[in-house]
This record gives sequence, C-alpha cells and structure tokens, in this order.
Amino acid sequence: MDQRAQPGAQKIVVLAEGSLGILESKTATVLVRYLPDNVVAVVDSENAGKDVSDVLEIGEGIPVVASLSEALKFQPTMLAIGISPPGGELPKAWREVLCEAIDHKMHVMSGLHQFLSEDSELIKRASRHGTVIWDVRKPPSGLPVATCKADDVNATVVLTVGADCRVGKMLAGIEITNALRGAGLNAEFGATGQNGIMVWGWGIAIDAVVSDFTAGAAERIVLSGSQNHDVLIVEGQGSLVHPGYSGVTLSLLHGSMPDAMIFCHQPSRKTVARYSVPLPPINDLIHQYEMLANPIKPAKVIGIALNCFDLTEFEALKAIKNAEDQTGLPATDVVRFGSGKLVDAVQKIHPAKR
Amino acid sequence: MDQRAQPGAQKIVVLAEGSLGILESKTATVLVRYLPDNVVAVVDSENAGKDVSDVLEIGEGIPVVASLSEALKFQPTMLAIGISPPGGELPKAWREVLCEAIDHKMHVMSGLHQFLSEDSELIKRASRHGTVIWDVRKPPSGLPVATCKADDVNATVVLTVGADCRVGKMLAGIEITNALRGAGLNAEFGATGQNGIMVWGWGIAIDAVVSDFTAGAAERIVLSGSQNHDVLIVEGQGSLVHPGYSGVTLSLLHGSMPDAMIFCHQPSRKTVARYSVPLPPINDLIHQYEMLANPIKPAKVIGIALNCFDLTEFEALKAIKNAEDQTGLPATDVVRFGSGKLVDAVQKIHPAKR
Repeated sequence: MDQRAQPGAQKIVVLAEGSLGILESKTATVLVRYLPDNVVAVVDSENAGKDVSDVLEIGEGIPVVASLSEALKFQPTMLAIGISPPGGELPKAWREVLCEAIDHKMHVMSGLHQFLSEDSELIKRASRHGTVIWDVRKPPSGLPVATCKADDVNATVVLTVGADCRVGKMLAGIEITNALRGAGLNAEFGATGQNGIMVWGWGIAIDAVVSDFTAGAAERIVLSGSQNHDVLIVEGQGSLVHPGYSGVTLSLLHGSMPDAMIFCHQPSRKTVARYSVPLPPINDLIHQYEMLANPIKPAKVIGIALNCFDLTEFEALKAIKNAEDQTGLPATDVVRFGSGKLVDAVQKIHPAKR
Repeated sequence: MDQRAQPGAQKIVVLAEGSLGILESKTATVLVRYLPDNVVAVVDSENAGKDVSDVLEIGEGIPVVASLSEALKFQPTMLAIGISPPGGELPKAWREVLCEAIDHKMHVMSGLHQFLSEDSELIKRASRHGTVIWDVRKPPSGLPVATCKADDVNATVVLTVGADCRVGKMLAGIEITNALRGAGLNAEFGATGQNGIMVWGWGIAIDAVVSDFTAGAAERIVLSGSQNHDVLIVEGQGSLVHPGYSGVTLSLLHGSMPDAMIFCHQPSRKTVARYSVPLPPINDLIHQYEMLANPIKPAKVIGIALNCFDLTEFEALKAIKNAEDQTGLPATDVVRFGSGKLVDAVQKIHPAKR
C-alpha cells in the first residue's frame, strides 16, 4: 500500500449511510472499535445527531453526521467506506460522495469488490488532488503457489479458525495480539480480510485472490508478519464447513502452517449463517482442523474464543464452562471477559518452538 | 465460449515445441489421447519427422512436424497451445507462431495463465481474420458464492478426488463417462481444468477463479452439466493434502455436492509431487474426503482409480489388489484394465437417487 494512506495516521470519516449498527456496516463498527482515535465522524443521515455509542455501544465521543459536508469541520484526511452496497456495484450517490471527498484532498479506503482504483474518473480526480485510493481487497501481483516456506519462520504462528463466518476470528486475533504486546511480547497480527487490513494497516484479503494462489497469499502474510516478531497471530477466514468459503479456510490453514490454532465460535449459532447446514459439535469441528493440518504441519487447537454478544452474562459464563468441559481447553469471550486465558495458552506453547 | 471454436469440430495443430513427451506438454498428450481425429499435427522441431506414437505411445498416424508452416498442408483450423512456458509469460517466438496461425485464419486455443484474448495485438489480428482466441482458463463473469443448489439436481453426481495433482482424476472421469455412455446411460462429464475443457468443449477452470467464488463455479458446472443428463461425472482437482491447491479441492467438493466419489491415486507416489509432504495412507485420505463432505452433503468413495503407468503389469495388478484389500472397494487402472469396475460402482448407486 501507499504509506501516505496508513489509516492509523489519518483523520477518518466513515461512510455508513443508512446502515450504522446493522450487519452491512461491520466495517464501520470495526473501524470505530479499533481506530477510535482516528475516526472523527460517521456519516449516516438516519442516525445523524447521535453519538456513535448510542448506536453501537462503542465509539463514545464520535459524532454521527448527516453528510460528508457536515464532517468537513473535523478536517478529515480519509474517507473510509464502511458499508457493502447491495449488488456490489458502486451506487451513484456514493460516487458523488467519493468525488467530494477527493476534491477535499481526502484519501479513500475501500473494501468493495469493485476496485475504485481502476475507475478512470476517480483515478484522474485523485491524481489531480494528490490523494490515494486504497482498495484493501486488491491482491498484490506476483503471488506464488504456496511452497511450505511458512514452516521456516522463527516466530510462533497461531491461526484463529472457526465454526463459521462472522464469529469473531479477526477480533480474537487482534485482542490476543494486543494483550501479548501488553504482556511484553513482540507480537504481530497478520490480517487476511478487508476489515483486519483497514485496522492493522497491512495484509492481504485472501478471499479476493485467485484460488491457485490463495495458500500462497497466506504464506506471504506469514513470511512478512513474522519478520522481526516473536509471535504472529494470523486472522482466520470462513470455516471448513462453510459451503461457499471452505476452500479459502483450507488454503489459509495450509498456507500459513500455524504452530497452533485458536477456535472461534458463537454458541448460539446452530447452522451456518445464511445456509441450512447444521454446525457439527465443537469437538468434531476442532478434530477436522487438526486432522487437515496434520499432513502438512501438525497443529493443535489450544484455546477457544466464544462470541457471546447475544447472551446474558449468566448464559455466557455457562457457554464458556460448557466449551471448557467438552474440549478440555481454556475458553473465554475476549470482549466480555478479556483474552487472558488465550494469551496464557499462546505463551505456554511459544517458548517450545525456540 | 464461442461455438465457432468447438475443438471437436476443428482440425487442430498442437504447439509442443521442444517438449513433446515431457510433463510440460501434458496438454498436448491429452489432446492427442482424446481428440485423435481432430489433431492433424504436433509441432516440435526436436521430434520432427517422427510419428506422435513413437514419442507418446498414443496418437498413431499423427505426424510431428518442425514448424507451423509445415503443418499448413493439413489445412488446420485451430492452433492449440500444448505446453506451459517457463515463467508464465508468452515467449516472443510463440507470439510469432500465434500471429502466423491467425493470419492463416486459425482459431487459437490456450490454457495459459496469461489471457491471450486480452492482448491487444492478437485481438486486432484475430478480429481482422474472423477467428476466435479461446482462453480456456478465463472464468465466466458473474460467478456466485455457492448456494448449495447443486443438491437440487436430478442427475447422479460423482466427483473424482485424489491423493495428489496429476494422478488421473480427469482421465478417470472421461473414461468412466465414455464407458457409461457405452453402457447406454445418458452421462455427461463436467470439466474443471484447462485440459478437460479443451477435450470436452465446456467447463470452468476453477483454479483460475477468485477463491470467494470457486465453490460457486463448481456449483455452476453441476447445474449446467446435469441438465438433460442422468449422470454427471465431475473432474476433481488437486488434493486435500496439497499445500498449494487444497483449497481448490475443498471448494470443488463443497460446491459440486456429489452423491459419491471415485478416489484416484498413483501407487508409486509417496510424497506430494514437488513437495516433501508424505502422502497419508489411502484409507486416511478417503476418510478425509468423506468426513469433509459429510456436514454439507454425505458422500462415500465408491471405487478407486489407480494410475499405474510406471509399474509392470504384475506390479499394477498387485497394487490394485492391495488397494481393494485395504479399502474393500473396487479398484482398477482405467487405461490398462478398463473402467468396468468403476462403471458398475456408479451404476449401483445411480438408481438409488431416483
């Protein structure tokens, strides 16, 4: 990426028109959660006038405004697209907002399938104003077929895996990375999806890579992320039982060659989201990951991250105890109860590699 | 594809310069095997003057010539690229051959990673001469994320799976399809790789699809191929234990939702080709496929296709008996001993679905 557009150095306005707080604006939520000092405003006319925390329960002090024009008073340097348009095409109304942002010398950060940096009108405009259009999903060129080189790195590599999409693999990974840093370890996070890349500033959206090279992309992330770091937590994607994305998941497992895995789940989820596929019992899922890792590089699941956002505290604690009893592994909800148990689990295997 | 370029209706010259008979010219070998009435000559100056069968043991009566010019006397209508260039870029010498072919009003069929139909010089030339440049690896646009619709088709769907790349999954699939037709069944073959597409005239090279949509591409193949057919044999790709391509394999398994699988192996292969990954025992590999199929749609391996090209007849028969004893499943080498046992196995499960 162009270093001028590092999100951690920007004043960001997040575009979430009509969507703040619903699933389609997951990107907006993630940016508010992890770049609270950078997000200066969120655009959503339906919630204009509120504080972001009134809608999301996080992001206190960040205003929701009705339009980009209204956000200009915060002197933003970047517009981040925080929603996915239905159909994947850029809506006409958004194009106008993008043009307005570029005209005000703002960089644009986008996780859309459609690459804005290949749009001739937007390119010309950005070039005139000296701003960067960063398509975080656009894969780098020259990715290799995986070569098993990820096994050669000195860092301890831990992959978050899961029962389904959107169960908290990115969030668990970031929380554990931050907590490891807090504990004095030289830890890095390897982002493999658009939201993780936006928050962390680097990575490859592996689901946008041609499938021949998807494991190679995962390998590239491990080779980069392990440089000058002792521990690398790699963001998982999808699930081995997801009818659409299981191939992405297995490419990531075999390309990243982790030393261990953290299993992520949402206890209330009984079927794969948007499909009628029942989720197998947690021990079966864990066994699948370990069995598939085995021929390429053996790795065990060493802990469980449960996403209990839709449970009461009592129910959440019960779900955590259930998971621990069933698997014999430490479990937690990293948002509610912290990532301490999982950090301990990572630290326990970490010196073993040296 | 453009129906004008259906390979089964062409007089084909295969370009295999410097490579006939070695692994890099697998495409040439496949075309000679399955389109012997269409291939009029093979270009390879190193073997010029020989009969193709002197080099490949198949293709009797097809001459090897030194250049395209020499092949023009056969009045060819298509040039097929039968080799993969080192590095993936189109060598300058080949470009000249392509231009010469187009100038002689020949279609061009290519399985290169680099899409010739996006090369402005070649496009212009082809348009001037009214010929088609067919990049068989180029995925169709608008592929979906898989939706599990492949489960709704009436045809019996059988997927060839395998221990590794290049063990005979395409070949077993075509042989079984042809034998089923010979037995009076209305069978179709669903090609998922470039060589299968060239031979069969339709399909999608799923390893060239962005990984989010790879299972969706497999689903598309099943929905198309099952129309007006009672049995569809889908060509497998890669292996669940292949460090680079396992994701393609799993996407294909979950997207195509087969009723049953044929397991393909080369008994002499002890590690994944080009990797130092040992191949697990055959029963473990079969168990992996069945276990991963299970949550989306249960499917069993019903037979084994062994590629014994590098064994004596005695050794081949022993390998087949070993496989049958170990797995309890019917096994054969479809090239050496015919596909009868596997055709029986498919017919046995076929009526069960009605």
